[in-house]
Amino acid sequence: MTRPLILDPDRLFPVDPRTRAVARSLYQEIKDLPIISPHGHTDPEWFAQNAAFEDAVDLLLAPDHYLYRMLFSQGIELKDLGVPDRSGANPADRREAWRLFAKHFYLFRGTPSALWLNHVFRDVFEFDVVLDAGSADDYYDRINAALKRPAFRPRALFDAFNIEVLATTEGPQDTLDHHHRIRESGWSGRVITTYRPDPVIDADHESFAEALQAFGDLTGEDVFNWHGYLAAHRKRRSDFRAAGATATDHGHPTARTLDLTPVEAEALFRRVVSGRAEVGDAEAFRAQMLTEMARMSLEDGMVMQIHAGSLRNHNRQLFKTHGRDKGADIPQATDYVHDLRPLLDRFGCEKGLNLILFTLDETAYSRELAPLAGHYPILKLGPSWWFHDSPEGMMRFREQTTETAGFYNTVGFNDDTRAFLSIPARHDVARRIDCAFLARLVGEGRMTETEACETARDLAYALPKAAYKL
Amino acid sequence: MTRPLILDPDRLFPVDPRTRAVARSLYQEIKDLPIISPHGHTDPEWFAQNAAFEDAVDLLLAPDHYLYRMLFSQGIELKDLGVPDRSGANPADRREAWRLFAKHFYLFRGTPSALWLNHVFRDVFEFDVVLDAGSADDYYDRINAALKRPAFRPRALFDAFNIEVLATTEGPQDTLDHHHRIRESGWSGRVITTYRPDPVIDADHESFAEALQAFGDLTGEDVFNWHGYLAAHRKRRSDFRAAGATATDHGHPTARTLDLTPVEAEALFRRVVSGRAEVGDAEAFRAQMLTEMARMSLEDGMVMQIHAGSLRNHNRQLFKTHGRDKGADIPQATDYVHDLRPLLDRFGCEKGLNLILFTLDETAYSRELAPLAGHYPILKLGPSWWFHDSPEGMMRFREQTTETAGFYNTVGFNDDTRAFLSIPARHDVARRIDCAFLARLVGEGRMTETEACETARDLAYALPKAAYKL
Amino acid sequence: MTRPLILDPDRLFPVDPRTRAVARSLYQEIKDLPIISPHGHTDPEWFAQNAAFEDAVDLLLAPDHYLYRMLFSQGIELKDLGVPDRSGANPADRREAWRLFAKHFYLFRGTPSALWLNHVFRDVFEFDVVLDAGSADDYYDRINAALKRPAFRPRALFDAFNIEVLATTEGPQDTLDHHHRIRESGWSGRVITTYRPDPVIDADHESFAEALQAFGDLTGEDVFNWHGYLAAHRKRRSDFRAAGATATDHGHPTARTLDLTPVEAEALFRRVVSGRAEVGDAEAFRAQMLTEMARMSLEDGMVMQIHAGSLRNHNRQLFKTHGRDKGADIPQATDYVHDLRPLLDRFGCEKGLNLILFTLDETAYSRELAPLAGHYPILKLGPSWWFHDSPEGMMRFREQTTETAGFYNTVGFNDDTRAFLSIPARHDVARRIDCAFLARLVGEGRMTETEACETARDLAYALPKAAYKL
Repeated sequence: MTRPLILDPDRLFPVDPRTRAVARSLYQEIKDLPIISPHGHTDPEWFAQNAAFEDAVDLLLAPDHYLYRMLFSQGIELKDLGVPDRSGANPADRREAWRLFAKHFYLFRGTPSALWLNHVFRDVFEFDVVLDAGSADDYYDRINAALKRPAFRPRALFDAFNIEVLATTEGPQDTLDHHHRIRESGWSGRVITTYRPDPVIDADHESFAEALQAFGDLTGEDVFNWHGYLAAHRKRRSDFRAAGATATDHGHPTARTLDLTPVEAEALFRRVVSGRAEVGDAEAFRAQMLTEMARMSLEDGMVMQIHAGSLRNHNRQLFKTHGRDKGADIPQATDYVHDLRPLLDRFGCEKGLNLILFTLDETAYSRELAPLAGHYPILKLGPSWWFHDSPEGMMRFREQTTETAGFYNTVGFNDDTRAFLSIPARHDVARRIDCAFLARLVGEGRMTETEACETARDLAYALPKAAYKL
Repeated sequence: MTRPLILDPDRLFPVDPRTRAVARSLYQEIKDLPIISPHGHTDPEWFAQNAAFEDAVDLLLAPDHYLYRMLFSQGIELKDLGVPDRSGANPADRREAWRLFAKHFYLFRGTPSALWLNHVFRDVFEFDVVLDAGSADDYYDRINAALKRPAFRPRALFDAFNIEVLATTEGPQDTLDHHHRIRESGWSGRVITTYRPDPVIDADHESFAEALQAFGDLTGEDVFNWHGYLAAHRKRRSDFRAAGATATDHGHPTARTLDLTPVEAEALFRRVVSGRAEVGDAEAFRAQMLTEMARMSLEDGMVMQIHAGSLRNHNRQLFKTHGRDKGADIPQATDYVHDLRPLLDRFGCEKGLNLILFTLDETAYSRELAPLAGHYPILKLGPSWWFHDSPEGMMRFREQTTETAGFYNTVGFNDDTRAFLSIPARHDVARRIDCAFLARLVGEGRMTETEACETARDLAYALPKAAYKL
Repeated sequence: MTRPLILDPDRLFPVDPRTRAVARSLYQEIKDLPIISPHGHTDPEWFAQNAAFEDAVDLLLAPDHYLYRMLFSQGIELKDLGVPDRSGANPADRREAWRLFAKHFYLFRGTPSALWLNHVFRDVFEFDVVLDAGSADDYYDRINAALKRPAFRPRALFDAFNIEVLATTEGPQDTLDHHHRIRESGWSGRVITTYRPDPVIDADHESFAEALQAFGDLTGEDVFNWHGYLAAHRKRRSDFRAAGATATDHGHPTARTLDLTPVEAEALFRRVVSGRAEVGDAEAFRAQMLTEMARMSLEDGMVMQIHAGSLRNHNRQLFKTHGRDKGADIPQATDYVHDLRPLLDRFGCEKGLNLILFTLDETAYSRELAPLAGHYPILKLGPSWWFHDSPEGMMRFREQTTETAGFYNTVGFNDDTRAFLSIPARHDVARRIDCAFLARLVGEGRMTETEACETARDLAYALPKAAYKL
């Protein structure tokens, strides 16, 4: 028996009718604003090449760790889902992989993945029955057929999605060739890069040495010397700015910062690059580099983002067979109050610096992040992130930060995704939840509807543009 | 002035009328499903002997630490409530103890104890006025009279409560005689045991040495030798399985696990049993034993439960006078991400293992437990536990775990109680809260009512049966 | 375009109409109860002198760290807001400061400051348009004019606010002269003091040595000798009780307590006062002094309050230029379970002691504080504090403590403010939120309306009076 697929036009709004009416009215004002996507992980090659996407599995299932981690948790093997292992091997029959996913789609009930995917299925592919074992083949065939059409090419979708600007994220060894091609193509879409230097900062990363080598080759600097290493960062930051970047991004296991003397910093660097690192040196080096990056941001104006608190590759067996980014990163408790203090002692009151903080530890919202952002001029709060990029997670973010930090120390939404087709769905969820939260404040007499409307527009559009200097 | 005792048929449902209607409709579908009680602390002797319960104090007040801890917190002495001290002395006049409780019943406003008790008072004993000083004697007399009737014998209540299966929890020194008598009695009620080896694993327990001795005596193994000790566990696990057990349970102060080499494990064991334990050895031994238990579960198929994070006997004065389990256990912050990793490194991807996690630290829900259970095949999340086995606590559990782990990495409800009469009330609260949560998702367009109905049935019945292999 | 300033009579009540009606009805019963303000930071000089307040900036903006921390976080300088620096210099043009504040008042949308101020603007000063750039001058002029009128003198406002008792907070070096003048003045207002000995207990405080000297001068005791030091505390506690105090207050960075032997305590004291303190000694001394204060409370009956978990002066740059209490205190994770244990081991079951706990770490509510207060006779929970003294914060407090500790282990509301004019607004918020919470419990069938009404009255009036022995 097929079940209809319907997107409730009032979805995610409060259930109380009067509050729902306010939410709906706020949403009307912002739903068609252009999408500002200041942080994400789409592949710039898509927009450079503008080739057709391969198939449903390659586009929607195999790259989406939200999906295959859930399926894996229920005993399904990655090899059966089209997820490549370390060798790149990917023996799955594509149709069978899709069927397996369809059959288990009920596992996603109540998750944001179900919301996003149903939005894509309905609005992008125009399905009107839900995905399940019975509809799996029809979905597979129709999606694959659609992807061959010009309207489903990356640039056409970008335009159809009403994206004003989209930032990708590249490492310091990246040539930025795709970005150059995009800019030279004459296409009007604004796709920019973001400088994410983790590979040459994180000595615990398995390919740190190679990355450093490439970093030196690309910049012509002696990156095994502290001053050459810093100069290489400055060169690459400049290259990235030339490719449109307005921001850097730092994905660290903790929020630890340090403000060492130049002599100490150089000595630490030498130990780290020479293989004579002691226990704690890799962490200390990441910490010091956040402060160095802040210093460079003061020079070049780049906005700085810290995504802290993910313990990467928690599942060592899976890491051995499949490598990183396979849905096995797990949040850990994160201290911002003590860890950020060295950086804040140095630069916390600077006027020219925007430092945007993200967390996977929701306990930090009301205890640490809102109090910090409600005081320090350089700090702003990024939206609820990753596991918390969800209706309940977004609502907790607003409920737990607004009273101390207000709305204006936050920066609107980041989709932070490589799932390109879900970008409108994700921004839509964020806009709906912000309207829902604001509508409750209106309903409870804590804000007027006029104020709520201004705030909704700022959250959807003005704040991300300003915070990321776009 | 007496006050009527009324159970609102819509209690715990959302207040918004349309959402309430959905909740009510979901609840209709599941309210009469049999009770699966896969983890609890009722006394198997009740079902073996099937004798009448003694009186209201003995049945409802004196064994319920939720009740006397609240009364104690307001300055009432345990001796006045019929709670025995270490010597077993229990000088309270029973009627006076009941009156004292009745007079202070208002202290439980807003607590789950009030919900559970009012359900028992209304549905089991058919009272129609609330318990207070004025009604205390009537309650006392009528309850005591009822308990003499055949319908209030343990087996009759078990049947009346529509319990399909009830698991008790016994230690490794238990002969399981009560369970044998139940099975030999011809009664159709399914009462099974659970293997809880803490007494022979926790060297910090005051009677560890005695327990070990009994463990050896019962198994005929040399339990002071590492291999004999492990063999004794295997024997007892086999005995427990013969008495119906499908699960083990481990109540540890932390979630720490270790995966030592056999040589290290044996050396640690020797220090622990020989009285030469160093600081940290007791904790390390508990940690290693979780991994040993997981290994045995892979052999014998028993489901494993970890109830972590209770700091037992926080009140040392009370421990001296009254011993353990007197309402003085306090939760502590608990780390699952790092602590479970050794066990997960070893067994996290096994197909044959079900490891069910419980927490008293709600911050772990969204930060650690849902991400872990949403990835590792062996992990499932137990329901909100103990202090959090309450309407708000259950709702937070669903709100903070569903978006990452889904519903299908959870295992339905555990009543985890020794308060036998409250079992239907507790399951009813869980069912109502799940319906309330699902109804909100339906109201917010996040799930269809059909899906919500299937999910409600799974949470109430199918998931606990499957997770506990019942 | 001016915007009307309207206080919704139903503000902060639940949006569902039936639940709102219950909340409104509960609120009617308690809204006119006298204000019990058992802990706060108003200046007793106001009531002693009864002089007119100076102007809008001095009364409403410059002393309110909630306000200027938010403005500072958006790049506005404290010197432009009339906030004095360390030298006391305060060069701001007052009208310009007010205009700057008015122009940025939108930053406070969704914060309790907006609620409190709008309440003051509407109810105390009778404004009917909102504060913004356009209305700034009118606000400034009308407020300043009003403050010259007799009805706006401190005592007249105190009476108009229906305050039954107001506690201020003084240090151990305070002569209490203002309090003596109040008591000798014949005015009927009950303004009492609170003993806050932090300056002579916290050796990390920059003026510890001076404070100690003044402590000795005032008491005539040799405060550099352990026994003299303790005797000086006893004398001052007695002085404070004579000035109406019923409570002490302790603002410590952690909740750490210790119960040293007399010999150890004396040795620790000697190291601390002699400048030979080792790492950890200052913390240990604060910890030991909490236990000493508890011991003295058992002698003299004073209620004890612990406000734990604020990391003071997080912004070192601002501390250098502007000193302490400038909106730069940040909460930190706080452990109550282990830290309070030494004190609880000694005094946890005493009948004569009231120890009221506050936290800035909301994770402690359900994990630690409610379980502790729901067991130990001496413990009660203070209301949600500081950053959490807000609608969402208060609601989380009730949602996360009630099911374990009940209502009767809490102590009603503390305004804890130096913003005298906002006191009615703050109590009003607390009363409304308690009614909103109780109304939901009624709506969900968890409590009768009769019970909710009794509880609302107890929370607003009876519980704070009893807990603070007023």
